[in-house]
Amino acid sequence: MAEEFTFIGKRVPKLDAIDKVTGRAIYGHDMKLPRMLYGKILRSDRAHARILNVDTSRAKKLPGVKAVITGDGIPDIRVGFAKDNPILKTGKVRSFRDEIAAVAAVDEDTAQEALELIKVEYEDLPAVFDPEEAMKPGAPLIHEEAERNILSMMTQSYFHGDVEKGFAESDVVIEDRLTLTRVAHCCMGTSFCLASFDNSGNLTVWNSSQMPFMSQRELSTALKIPPDKIRVIKATIGGGFGSKLDTYPHDPLCVLLAQMTGRPVRITFTREEEFIASPTRQPVICDIKSGAKKDGTLMGRQVKMILDNGAYSSWGATTPLVMMMTISSLYRVPNVKYDVLVVYTNNPYAGAMRGYGNPQATFVVDSHMDMLAHELGMDPMEFRLKNANQSGDVTGQGVKITTCGLSECIEKAAESISWQEKRGKGGNRGVGIAAQFHVGGGARIYPSDGCGTTIKVDDYGKVTVITGSTDMGQGSDTIIAQIVAEEMGVPVDNITVVNTDTAITPWDVGAHASRTTFIAGNSARLAAADAKRQILEAAAQAYNIKSGNLDLREGQISVKSEPEEGIPYAKAIRAGHFRPDGDLVLARGWYEPPTDKQDKEFRGNISATYAFAAQAAEVEVDTETGEVTVLKIAAAHDVGRALNPMAVEGQIEGGVSMGLGYGLNEALVLEEGKMLNPNFADYALPTALDMPPIDLIIVETIDPEGPFGAKGMAEPANNPTAPAIANAVYDAVGVRIKDLPITAEKVLKALKEKKSGKRE
Amino acid sequence: MAEEFTFIGKRVPKLDAIDKVTGRAIYGHDMKLPRMLYGKILRSDRAHARILNVDTSRAKKLPGVKAVITGDGIPDIRVGFAKDNPILKTGKVRSFRDEIAAVAAVDEDTAQEALELIKVEYEDLPAVFDPEEAMKPGAPLIHEEAERNILSMMTQSYFHGDVEKGFAESDVVIEDRLTLTRVAHCCMGTSFCLASFDNSGNLTVWNSSQMPFMSQRELSTALKIPPDKIRVIKATIGGGFGSKLDTYPHDPLCVLLAQMTGRPVRITFTREEEFIASPTRQPVICDIKSGAKKDGTLMGRQVKMILDNGAYSSWGATTPLVMMMTISSLYRVPNVKYDVLVVYTNNPYAGAMRGYGNPQATFVVDSHMDMLAHELGMDPMEFRLKNANQSGDVTGQGVKITTCGLSECIEKAAESISWQEKRGKGGNRGVGIAAQFHVGGGARIYPSDGCGTTIKVDDYGKVTVITGSTDMGQGSDTIIAQIVAEEMGVPVDNITVVNTDTAITPWDVGAHASRTTFIAGNSARLAAADAKRQILEAAAQAYNIKSGNLDLREGQISVKSEPEEGIPYAKAIRAGHFRPDGDLVLARGWYEPPTDKQDKEFRGNISATYAFAAQAAEVEVDTETGEVTVLKIAAAHDVGRALNPMAVEGQIEGGVSMGLGYGLNEALVLEEGKMLNPNFADYALPTALDMPPIDLIIVETIDPEGPFGAKGMAEPANNPTAPAIANAVYDAVGVRIKDLPITAEKVLKALKEKKSGKRE
Repeated sequence: MAEEFTFIGKRVPKLDAIDKVTGRAIYGHDMKLPRMLYGKILRSDRAHARILNVDTSRAKKLPGVKAVITGDGIPDIRVGFAKDNPILKTGKVRSFRDEIAAVAAVDEDTAQEALELIKVEYEDLPAVFDPEEAMKPGAPLIHEEAERNILSMMTQSYFHGDVEKGFAESDVVIEDRLTLTRVAHCCMGTSFCLASFDNSGNLTVWNSSQMPFMSQRELSTALKIPPDKIRVIKATIGGGFGSKLDTYPHDPLCVLLAQMTGRPVRITFTREEEFIASPTRQPVICDIKSGAKKDGTLMGRQVKMILDNGAYSSWGATTPLVMMMTISSLYRVPNVKYDVLVVYTNNPYAGAMRGYGNPQATFVVDSHMDMLAHELGMDPMEFRLKNANQSGDVTGQGVKITTCGLSECIEKAAESISWQEKRGKGGNRGVGIAAQFHVGGGARIYPSDGCGTTIKVDDYGKVTVITGSTDMGQGSDTIIAQIVAEEMGVPVDNITVVNTDTAITPWDVGAHASRTTFIAGNSARLAAADAKRQILEAAAQAYNIKSGNLDLREGQISVKSEPEEGIPYAKAIRAGHFRPDGDLVLARGWYEPPTDKQDKEFRGNISATYAFAAQAAEVEVDTETGEVTVLKIAAAHDVGRALNPMAVEGQIEGGVSMGLGYGLNEALVLEEGKMLNPNFADYALPTALDMPPIDLIIVETIDPEGPFGAKGMAEPANNPTAPAIANAVYDAVGVRIKDLPITAEKVLKALKEKKSGKRE
Repeated sequence: MAEEFTFIGKRVPKLDAIDKVTGRAIYGHDMKLPRMLYGKILRSDRAHARILNVDTSRAKKLPGVKAVITGDGIPDIRVGFAKDNPILKTGKVRSFRDEIAAVAAVDEDTAQEALELIKVEYEDLPAVFDPEEAMKPGAPLIHEEAERNILSMMTQSYFHGDVEKGFAESDVVIEDRLTLTRVAHCCMGTSFCLASFDNSGNLTVWNSSQMPFMSQRELSTALKIPPDKIRVIKATIGGGFGSKLDTYPHDPLCVLLAQMTGRPVRITFTREEEFIASPTRQPVICDIKSGAKKDGTLMGRQVKMILDNGAYSSWGATTPLVMMMTISSLYRVPNVKYDVLVVYTNNPYAGAMRGYGNPQATFVVDSHMDMLAHELGMDPMEFRLKNANQSGDVTGQGVKITTCGLSECIEKAAESISWQEKRGKGGNRGVGIAAQFHVGGGARIYPSDGCGTTIKVDDYGKVTVITGSTDMGQGSDTIIAQIVAEEMGVPVDNITVVNTDTAITPWDVGAHASRTTFIAGNSARLAAADAKRQILEAAAQAYNIKSGNLDLREGQISVKSEPEEGIPYAKAIRAGHFRPDGDLVLARGWYEPPTDKQDKEFRGNISATYAFAAQAAEVEVDTETGEVTVLKIAAAHDVGRALNPMAVEGQIEGGVSMGLGYGLNEALVLEEGKMLNPNFADYALPTALDMPPIDLIIVETIDPEGPFGAKGMAEPANNPTAPAIANAVYDAVGVRIKDLPITAEKVLKALKEKKSGKRE
């Protein structure tokens, strides 16, 4: 590409970086309103039990307590995708995190003391924690209104081609069960909600939602407050990763407490509460069958999945739709069948988490690709290359791949990890590779997948970009500033990005599906072009030159034929403003991607482009202890264009870190539904010291629909790490760990079994 | 008028009324930021003195004190119209309020204690408190860099016609000296400033400015911070009345303290500080000469004014420009001469206050009109009617009067006060009348007198109006909401108005000159029309009907031919949004009034329309004590159209109350420059119990340029009250009080002098 950019492709530091590292950023936790009360929630200490009595009398008498509510005192308000989650439970509790009562008091200590004064009498019920057990006839019913512990609306079956025919035509068919465990988001900032009514009944909510416009809608539905009476403002959030995508009971509870007391109420989760009461990644039991011809042509893939939904359904219950896309479309595969059951258990409930099901699906698919390659006697890397998706492909699910850097990613990751030299060399060292496929140009779930932007440029050239999109720490404000700076031709320092206040910012569906750079970026670019046009018209009028002959670059307006002589653009804006028939610079943009909703058979092109990646891992296994050490990760990502290489690298590093924890260490340990490690001392989140060197490889395919060629790339970084490690462990010591995480215990056990011949 | 309106002309309560009366509104005083420090200012306790030494060493050592600054430690920063006001004084102090040092500490008590630990050594200088004394050669010089105590740039001379010829052609010529005293704004909310820097050097200021965009500009000039690095957010203000129009030392001091400490700093004035350190209304010494023919034709008016500017110049030093307009153009007067001197004294300095000089000018002109009528033997009301301005007039100053309800106002006020029955009937009761003339369609002082508006309408029909204008308690947000509701055809309840945050709202010059309803209202109406067009286009596309055939009324879109069948407008907006080629509703408006700047001879039509009013007073004078009791005020105001009669009435009532205090009771008492009554116990602000019945008479002239016919009317309510009372006192007991306020002492003295023949 011969294009020259001023701000695109540059390592611009995050606009909010300094404020965050120096502690000046004002998080929701820092917010105080006059007369504000502190809300707290009493949660179940049983996995499954009838509630016989809730005695709040002592709590109500505690000085400083302003409200105590239980499920019996409020309307039947339910949240979540399946509306199966009462914000306060009545009759019975179904998991340890269940909300039983909420209090508001003048300070946090008093609120905590009030919780301790509430007496709950329970009668334990038989509980079920294993989804396969939960599916059996006669299992304790979690929700009595259903006949089985299955979320029927997510019992889905997808196919393309004829998978039986595919297996019949295969030379090799293998079949395995792989399982994945429960992990936590571990956002550095816990969840919060601050609700305040004015006396006209207008509600303002400052919360940690990644999807403020959805939060507004869901709070309206839950609380029967007209949506136009609700203003949701996203305060500064300490990370989202999907846990802040949904509306959980604490948001409407906070609003109810504010409504009842007539005072602002803030609920802030403690770290333990964040572990216990935030959703988790879905544990999955997966039976996968794959077939290929001798020459390595992939012929068929059949997947049956059982998801442990926990006791309630959040939007996370819809992750099978994302898993489906990887199962149908990662690598060219002509025949696919996919069946999924989402099963209720008495465990804490699962939700959305970076990748939205894709880390699970990618682990399953790319572990099996490796196993199939070994079965075929092929180099696993060559096997992947042979079946890699290519630009111009339309997959069986109707996914239209316009730009595709998958082969290049595989090749570059393999090269970086010294694949040819290091593969199969023994010595307890090995290399593995895995790829991934994800939406990269939005995801049409809601009727609109668009984003609006308005831009105001003041008399001093200060550009205020008011975007619908949500920066939850991922850095989207910085990318939007770069896009606007580039498109307008003004310095990035002159740009302020204002994000998510539903009363002020134009609509956007929210920060999910790695869509913000692509969708909000395109929207911002359109608004920037509109602003530039207005500025050049102001200049044209002021200086009596046709606007078509003018250009704006690096803050200077010049005649195209004489680019070296310019005037500051703010001067032209003032000239436009201070004319009798003048005007301000007030611009707008709206971008809706050219995509479709899926049809009833789950077919359709829901994203305007797709992101590909391959990661290779080198590991060393200590055969005495079973411990796996990752020596290096090579992460090659097709990002369309890296608008800000530093931000791209940060996303990849974060994704690899998350994938490393998922692959090796992290697991929420439950005992009969009770979480045993809800803190950073016991939950093994990788720290900086645990990180291997990462070779960050950016593959640019310059997407024609993306803003300056970019694709979404936030979730993909997290998807292929765990299977790459699993595949490397196999290469190193010849044992295949089919159950995440790959703990030392599991490796040691497998090595022993292998030695004793119990395992192939 | 046969026009039917849904929201215009309706008594819509102020949108913020309930929050304010119930204490929920968050004023600047309520704001706290994490790590915020409290700033306080040490002020001079001398009127004029050399500063020999400022010892801050003890203050600096006080635990909790984070910064102590004096003028010697900072750059020479000056604020105000003439840039004669250093934010911290060095060398000498020129009045009792002078800022000597500023501190920032962890709480207010510590900051106060720190002030008390600062030792200032002074050497008193000769001082001058009377402007006529101050003008004399040899008077102590307030600013040594000037040769005389006169603000030379405000030494102005205006004329039209030939005033000497006018007097020569008059049958009666009279000449008098009238004087006006110093009064305070008495805003219920005191001044504040909260300044916070982020680590990139971006400054956010929450202050009580009525003119946030000017505040941004002036802070930039004063502090040499680029204006695009400064964001000014107007917090909720407890009244402005002009005292919050200018940038005073406390704003830049607050910013400096924040800059030095790296922490947010808030300065909040105490009530005493608000009295002492806010600007006052200008005291004026005025020599006026008026002439008329026997038939009552006004022939000439000559005015010489001396303004007591105090020690420094705020924008209030430019009030002679507003006084000039009343002197040149209130009543038809063919020959006028006006000369003014603005004089420095060692008194606290004067500033902008409701009417901006016009209460002073109106008192002088309309007292003299009354005296001239008596001299001519004419009914003062008839004399005014004979000379009243009329629609179509262009005055000698180039003021173009398009609509004029002056005669109707005079007639209706006179009728209400029972002029014919009560005038000249003795018994120590009397009636008086006065009129006024003021800008009512903006005032072109700055190169642009416009206002921008953007409107966002969301999927639920919620209309967010982002206006450049500033609501400081006057209720402009409510009027803007009504205008938008009427123009768009949507319920006023669905409208939220967002005002003044320089980073978000489009430009506006600020809340002054009674311009907001007119200018911001017209701007909002344009934006609303744009929004309506977008909504009807969305509906037209969705339902395949030409948009020209559709109408939107009361929230329903219908085909014009079938107005009874409609669909909710939010439904059409969603249909427009959720189409693949859809769009959001994002609208904009910019209004610049069709006016001129004055030329060098002060001629030009600076306002798009003008507001007229007449107020009549009935008084009773206790001849034993001299006390004047106002029995009734009849206030007739040409407001163009009353967009919200309740709001109009509130403005009139407030204006009359302020005029009543100005006329009868209020005065800041100074002794050698020191204020003796800086509190509500000693400063005689009229209370609810002091208010007479007011007959509120709205005269509608339906201005062709005004939004739905409205004119500005906020300041006019305050202008004619005092002269109406003075004229009524004369009618009651035959003494003319030429010096405001009309205290019992002055009346009693005059009655005694009259009795003893010392006074005519």
